[in-house]
Amino acid sequence: MAEYLTGIDLGGTNIKVGVVDQTGRIISKHSAPMGKPRTREEVLEKIYAATEETLRRAGMKADRIKALGIATPGTLDIAAGVVVSAANLPDWENVALRESVRKRFDIPVVLENDANAAAWGEYWAGAGKETSSMIMLTLGTGIGGGIILDGKLWHGFKDSAGEIGHVVIDYHGRQCACGNIGCLEAYASADSTVRRFVEAVKSGKSTNLERHVHEHPEEITSKIICEEALKGDVLSRKTLEETGFYLGVGVVTILHFMNPEMVVLTGGMIIGAGSMLMDPLKRVVEERAMGRSREDVRIAFARLGGDAGFVGAAGCALTVSGTSAS
Amino acid sequence: MAEYLTGIDLGGTNIKVGVVDQTGRIISKHSAPMGKPRTREEVLEKIYAATEETLRRAGMKADRIKALGIATPGTLDIAAGVVVSAANLPDWENVALRESVRKRFDIPVVLENDANAAAWGEYWAGAGKETSSMIMLTLGTGIGGGIILDGKLWHGFKDSAGEIGHVVIDYHGRQCACGNIGCLEAYASADSTVRRFVEAVKSGKSTNLERHVHEHPEEITSKIICEEALKGDVLSRKTLEETGFYLGVGVVTILHFMNPEMVVLTGGMIIGAGSMLMDPLKRVVEERAMGRSREDVRIAFARLGGDAGFVGAAGCALTVSGTSAS
Repeated sequence: MAEYLTGIDLGGTNIKVGVVDQTGRIISKHSAPMGKPRTREEVLEKIYAATEETLRRAGMKADRIKALGIATPGTLDIAAGVVVSAANLPDWENVALRESVRKRFDIPVVLENDANAAAWGEYWAGAGKETSSMIMLTLGTGIGGGIILDGKLWHGFKDSAGEIGHVVIDYHGRQCACGNIGCLEAYASADSTVRRFVEAVKSGKSTNLERHVHEHPEEITSKIICEEALKGDVLSRKTLEETGFYLGVGVVTILHFMNPEMVVLTGGMIIGAGSMLMDPLKRVVEERAMGRSREDVRIAFARLGGDAGFVGAAGCALTVSGTSAS
Repeated sequence: MAEYLTGIDLGGTNIKVGVVDQTGRIISKHSAPMGKPRTREEVLEKIYAATEETLRRAGMKADRIKALGIATPGTLDIAAGVVVSAANLPDWENVALRESVRKRFDIPVVLENDANAAAWGEYWAGAGKETSSMIMLTLGTGIGGGIILDGKLWHGFKDSAGEIGHVVIDYHGRQCACGNIGCLEAYASADSTVRRFVEAVKSGKSTNLERHVHEHPEEITSKIICEEALKGDVLSRKTLEETGFYLGVGVVTILHFMNPEMVVLTGGMIIGAGSMLMDPLKRVVEERAMGRSREDVRIAFARLGGDAGFVGAAGCALTVSGTSAS
């Protein structure tokens, strides 16, 4: 009986694949390096091989899989099952990914963008279980997001909703890489946190990382800042707390605008920074958000870590299998 | 046959009632002053009388009405049909308004908050007809909002979604009346526009309204500023254009976050200010919003004016009649 689901999380560096049951519990998982494929066929072969390896580890053939979901970066036409473009993969324009994978494994396939899939994973089987509405922020190079309302992903008019990194927090503030001014992402992503830290050091603030910043600023990561903060470095701690403050401002906008039941934060930085991010974030929400918009709201870290993408992709496949998956 | 709908727009100053057909076309309408009722029974009697007068003008008995919707200010428990509290009406706490009106007219009744009802009116029968998703901003004393996604009003976890006046545009900016800092409302509501104008005059900027501002600042309204701007007063025009700029920043956040198909603006100020608001607003969106979030998006003024509330209330009644209306 086809009772399991497969999720693929396609990244520029790795392909993560998992087999999960219909509650989102992971049966087997496998991560394969993308390497340096030169053609779109080579990328597809990598996807097929990683999927077959995961099934082999689960001791299953594809006929045990009810449906397969693919979390993918780039611009998608979800209805058509096509990746319109993606920066990190070769020759990856107008790829009919859904149809290719469907043919190979002869099961229903759905595509979802990677941020939405990760949000769906947390909603279905992680931090957001049993909520009706959840908004997730992913802190990385930038800040991505996913929006779940009334048990459904909200994609937006042109499949581009959830750019929560690009809500404005200061209309005359920092320049954002997207061209806008004052986006949340320009203050509170992992990369922006590093940038603010390096700026502070270069402007003369003292820190244990002073020499490191002056000699090799390009080596500083949010992970290093988290580690130094935990060792007691004041500037590192202050920088992370400021990130928490900015995130809190963004969360106030989210609560006032959409009044979700839950806000979830994910990304490598949450593990290292923990309460140094969450405490100031919650303080801002307490101080600034209107009563009803924050009543009984839960704000929490994600639970699935790097598995959220393939778990969520599998969950999206479950949701549509039997309906619009082809 | 019960083929028409009735909408009531309950305000502190007036009760507006309309009979509409199932496409939202107005058959008859009537506005009655609230006066100074002293008890909740007196308020209810005013509501009944205004409704009966509207039906009389339409030449109908209540048995021609399929369902009745009430747009009401204050905090609601929509599922229970109860107004939890409303500042401008006497003894208006935990009023089982739905049940009272249902009993009086013996037809299904629904409650909706006034900002949502007005948004639904524009979506159903006004500027937003034939869109799938629409977000409306109402510029008045404050800035209210309503959110329609996939043909449904989004109420939020605690029925408090759509506080679009309280998305942040400057986290270290102006104090907002809500307690938050830097809300859109603190810059771009009709009242905030007046406040910025008066501030500019008091700081020495010259305008035709100089004497008026110095002698009777409390008399300045956004209407007067609009009129002077149209007569060529530079500071008046600049103040309105700045309002348009701030609204544009708010719209950028709306587009990035939710990617709706349409954004609608309403409120008295849009009539007076017109393109002085809309041109700078669209310019900011063009310059600052990411490509896909603004692709094919429509940004427009509302069409129903002061009728949107009762039309939308009637439309909400149509949507739920036969399902959950009681």
